[in-house]
Amino acid sequence: MARLGENRWGKSAVRISKVHRGADQDDFTDLEVQILLRGDVAPAHLDGDNGAVIPTDTMRNTVYALAQEHLGHDLESFAASLCDHFLAKDRIDSATVSIAEQRWQRVGSHGFIGGGSERRVARVTAGGADSGIWAGVEGLVVLKTTGSAFVGFPKDEYTVLPEAEDRILATSVTATWRYSAVPADTSATWEEARALLLERFFDDWSASVQHQGWMMGQALIDAIPEIDQVELRLPNQHHIPFDLARFGLEYQGTVFQPVAEPYGDIALTVIR
Amino acid sequence: MARLGENRWGKSAVRISKVHRGADQDDFTDLEVQILLRGDVAPAHLDGDNGAVIPTDTMRNTVYALAQEHLGHDLESFAASLCDHFLAKDRIDSATVSIAEQRWQRVGSHGFIGGGSERRVARVTAGGADSGIWAGVEGLVVLKTTGSAFVGFPKDEYTVLPEAEDRILATSVTATWRYSAVPADTSATWEEARALLLERFFDDWSASVQHQGWMMGQALIDAIPEIDQVELRLPNQHHIPFDLARFGLEYQGTVFQPVAEPYGDIALTVIR
Amino acid sequence: MARLGENRWGKSAVRISKVHRGADQDDFTDLEVQILLRGDVAPAHLDGDNGAVIPTDTMRNTVYALAQEHLGHDLESFAASLCDHFLAKDRIDSATVSIAEQRWQRVGSHGFIGGGSERRVARVTAGGADSGIWAGVEGLVVLKTTGSAFVGFPKDEYTVLPEAEDRILATSVTATWRYSAVPADTSATWEEARALLLERFFDDWSASVQHQGWMMGQALIDAIPEIDQVELRLPNQHHIPFDLARFGLEYQGTVFQPVAEPYGDIALTVIR
Amino acid sequence: MARLGENRWGKSAVRISKVHRGADQDDFTDLEVQILLRGDVAPAHLDGDNGAVIPTDTMRNTVYALAQEHLGHDLESFAASLCDHFLAKDRIDSATVSIAEQRWQRVGSHGFIGGGSERRVARVTAGGADSGIWAGVEGLVVLKTTGSAFVGFPKDEYTVLPEAEDRILATSVTATWRYSAVPADTSATWEEARALLLERFFDDWSASVQHQGWMMGQALIDAIPEIDQVELRLPNQHHIPFDLARFGLEYQGTVFQPVAEPYGDIALTVIR
Repeated sequence: MARLGENRWGKSAVRISKVHRGADQDDFTDLEVQILLRGDVAPAHLDGDNGAVIPTDTMRNTVYALAQEHLGHDLESFAASLCDHFLAKDRIDSATVSIAEQRWQRVGSHGFIGGGSERRVARVTAGGADSGIWAGVEGLVVLKTTGSAFVGFPKDEYTVLPEAEDRILATSVTATWRYSAVPADTSATWEEARALLLERFFDDWSASVQHQGWMMGQALIDAIPEIDQVELRLPNQHHIPFDLARFGLEYQGTVFQPVAEPYGDIALTVIR
Repeated sequence: MARLGENRWGKSAVRISKVHRGADQDDFTDLEVQILLRGDVAPAHLDGDNGAVIPTDTMRNTVYALAQEHLGHDLESFAASLCDHFLAKDRIDSATVSIAEQRWQRVGSHGFIGGGSERRVARVTAGGADSGIWAGVEGLVVLKTTGSAFVGFPKDEYTVLPEAEDRILATSVTATWRYSAVPADTSATWEEARALLLERFFDDWSASVQHQGWMMGQALIDAIPEIDQVELRLPNQHHIPFDLARFGLEYQGTVFQPVAEPYGDIALTVIR
Repeated sequence: MARLGENRWGKSAVRISKVHRGADQDDFTDLEVQILLRGDVAPAHLDGDNGAVIPTDTMRNTVYALAQEHLGHDLESFAASLCDHFLAKDRIDSATVSIAEQRWQRVGSHGFIGGGSERRVARVTAGGADSGIWAGVEGLVVLKTTGSAFVGFPKDEYTVLPEAEDRILATSVTATWRYSAVPADTSATWEEARALLLERFFDDWSASVQHQGWMMGQALIDAIPEIDQVELRLPNQHHIPFDLARFGLEYQGTVFQPVAEPYGDIALTVIR
Repeated sequence: MARLGENRWGKSAVRISKVHRGADQDDFTDLEVQILLRGDVAPAHLDGDNGAVIPTDTMRNTVYALAQEHLGHDLESFAASLCDHFLAKDRIDSATVSIAEQRWQRVGSHGFIGGGSERRVARVTAGGADSGIWAGVEGLVVLKTTGSAFVGFPKDEYTVLPEAEDRILATSVTATWRYSAVPADTSATWEEARALLLERFFDDWSASVQHQGWMMGQALIDAIPEIDQVELRLPNQHHIPFDLARFGLEYQGTVFQPVAEPYGDIALTVIR
């Protein structure tokens, strides 16, 4: 004779980002949230009666909806407000909200360096036609809360993307450059190249990832005489405005859903 | 003096699943698609003029839209039809479409076992209050194209999920059971338990993941006397109907977007 | 005033493979083991006195040493024998051993297909000089317990690898082939190509990964007229004989340590 | 008629770390190296003649051997010296060496913070017996090049680990603490707790991971009155001295092999 023991349900891996817009600078919060509920749901298990089973999709929506008003730097407070929200529902006995915040390092007023996937790379081929010396950086995650647009693109029957005069731009930079002559101090040159890539990403307004990438590659060619070619790969790490209007909320341009897949995949080569 | 070299743009990691409904049985296709275009987009890089830059979001939509009509078992043919679609656009010179198909193993008329993450697990604790012997399976990915519903759930201001009388149900089963007595042949008992879990998943109609999980756990308790407790964790691997109506297409209930995150996270314990 | 609460220590992610050699066929077991101990180790925490702290490296060695004699198909029994071994030590109160077994599918007498990372791939490029149609398979994990050697290689001051007249060979096949003409039924041709790759891997004795790869690629060229080029990448997934002699045990050629990194990285192209 | 086209072989994912010992402070380099060779190895493919096939295991050993003398901050120079080494061998036509360097942030004279996996976490449970507020950090990777020992442990027939009076200690800190009362500013308290964890890891000599962990947990209890319990999980990310003596080289205590698996798995709770 079987009977129901401990049980819970919820939503895991809810990713949410929020821009805290300020007069002089923006802050940026990047979270992964999990909500787990316990309650009087034995009828759902035993009889297929979902009368108390709050859909996990609703839990997800609630995270975004409450984030617009309640999400600040105090994660525990935001978690508590989510708990309170669900505890007020019928037949819910307990709520657990877990939050993990990705750390970003501020650069300037609207820029951030994230993650820790960054690696300096070097590649030397000797012997044969492909001989050469390459240096580069991979996994350099950068994000800016403003300073990027995407408008004027062609439309067809499958286009629903709205034009964006101002949007979040985030990418994981992979840049590789070829040395026609080895610099005197390859580490110093690498640091200079990295600084130029960041400067052009954070300081230059761009009309697209392509436009941004061109300015980044061009800067290396212009500033470092030993470099004769730059290859850039710039996956677009989309942060989608989350539609709060369907909940009767006015969207304030602060709450976003980061999506890992699919992603825009932009690559270009800049040559001297 | 910098100039633009090789470049391309596109969309990577477009995940799409399609059910090929048949009279007696369904087929199921699970793809990851990448589209890369080359064309006359130097103005986008150099001047921020996006006139030829087909948005990668449009590429994604096109995959789903064309899949409804064109996606069968011939992947090369589907890739070619996507190439043709984009080559017909202004200022596009070349298109590359790459497809990777996850393999699923058919079980019965509407069921599939997927992935290869499945592992048999065993855990023994000796000494102390927690002593016991546990066995189980983890990462057993299963999907059925019909035989699952989710209706009658509570609604609030953040609920947009439609009721579903019939939906795809997919999960990665983690089931662990405790032996009150060690079976004579633990491998044979493990095989029996695994078969029961699959049978109940594929054969029993369910009103929710919770309902499905209960029937799976109950079956182990009923059939195997040495088991006195079963813990199940059943993440809901959502396959979302892709909205084709906004492109003027009639949705035929065959094209879905699998999403890895967030996911419904359901766990329960069944005890004797 | 702080005091020590619950604590435990152990070794996680101990990977071990064992060949069960039979008269007509071999069996193969592939495990990941975790050992966690509890005991009287407060002095280690508070005073740095390691008198009861069995090194986790010793735990690892014990897994391999006991596996030679005790590891069969009954995982619970092997876990229990490890528990007993550690419980017999001074000041150990409790032991938990967890095992996860990767599932392999037998092919023939000494071959196995593993994992579930296998994907069918297709790639079409239209427009431009690179136009073409490619098909392939990736992540097809295969292992054979005999039928592969590696001898006669050059030695220098950094060579310690012993010659092996007979060894385990395992790889994750990525094979991609170009069609000069599209086959009538691309799915049937794909199945034929996959079957040929497996046949040549499992049936043909090889003197190296390179040798094995050549026979696999050659088979596709010979059998399928539409294929004019095959690219193979065959990472060598090493299974290292675990040195039991230092424990006074005679090594029986059955217990191995699979290592994920580094790995031998072999690639070749076969053309018509 | 099949013939051999492009081919190469090598070793990928060779992980190596090096300590650059200085009078006042150490530097630390953490690399992943790949070596790929091309040469006259058609006989290996076609006839199983390995006369020119330098074993990939030898390539790996060469990385460690040359690193002791040649590896500094100039990655391109180290890559070039590896290329030169292999090009000097018989029947080798071309060598490509790729290096990726993980970036570590210096803290004090012998400490480093690595990776970017660090996340601030918060967990609130409301309703039911488990109610409580937890905060913490996960994935905080730290390493020190000195200031840790492991001696005086019990030995048995499977113990081969040498006693170490001074070793590299590296871990990925997961620390979670429970608040008996919510601090006025949870973000400020979190920063304080993180700083204490780092201080105790980098400043306190330890006799084991257990000893280090105790001091870390104790510091939180002592300094922050709102915390009544700390849970720590400290996987030991081993850096194994690479045995160069078998190549006739004197080991200088600077070259290590980081291994991802298996890993020592230490957990403890510190309570008020």
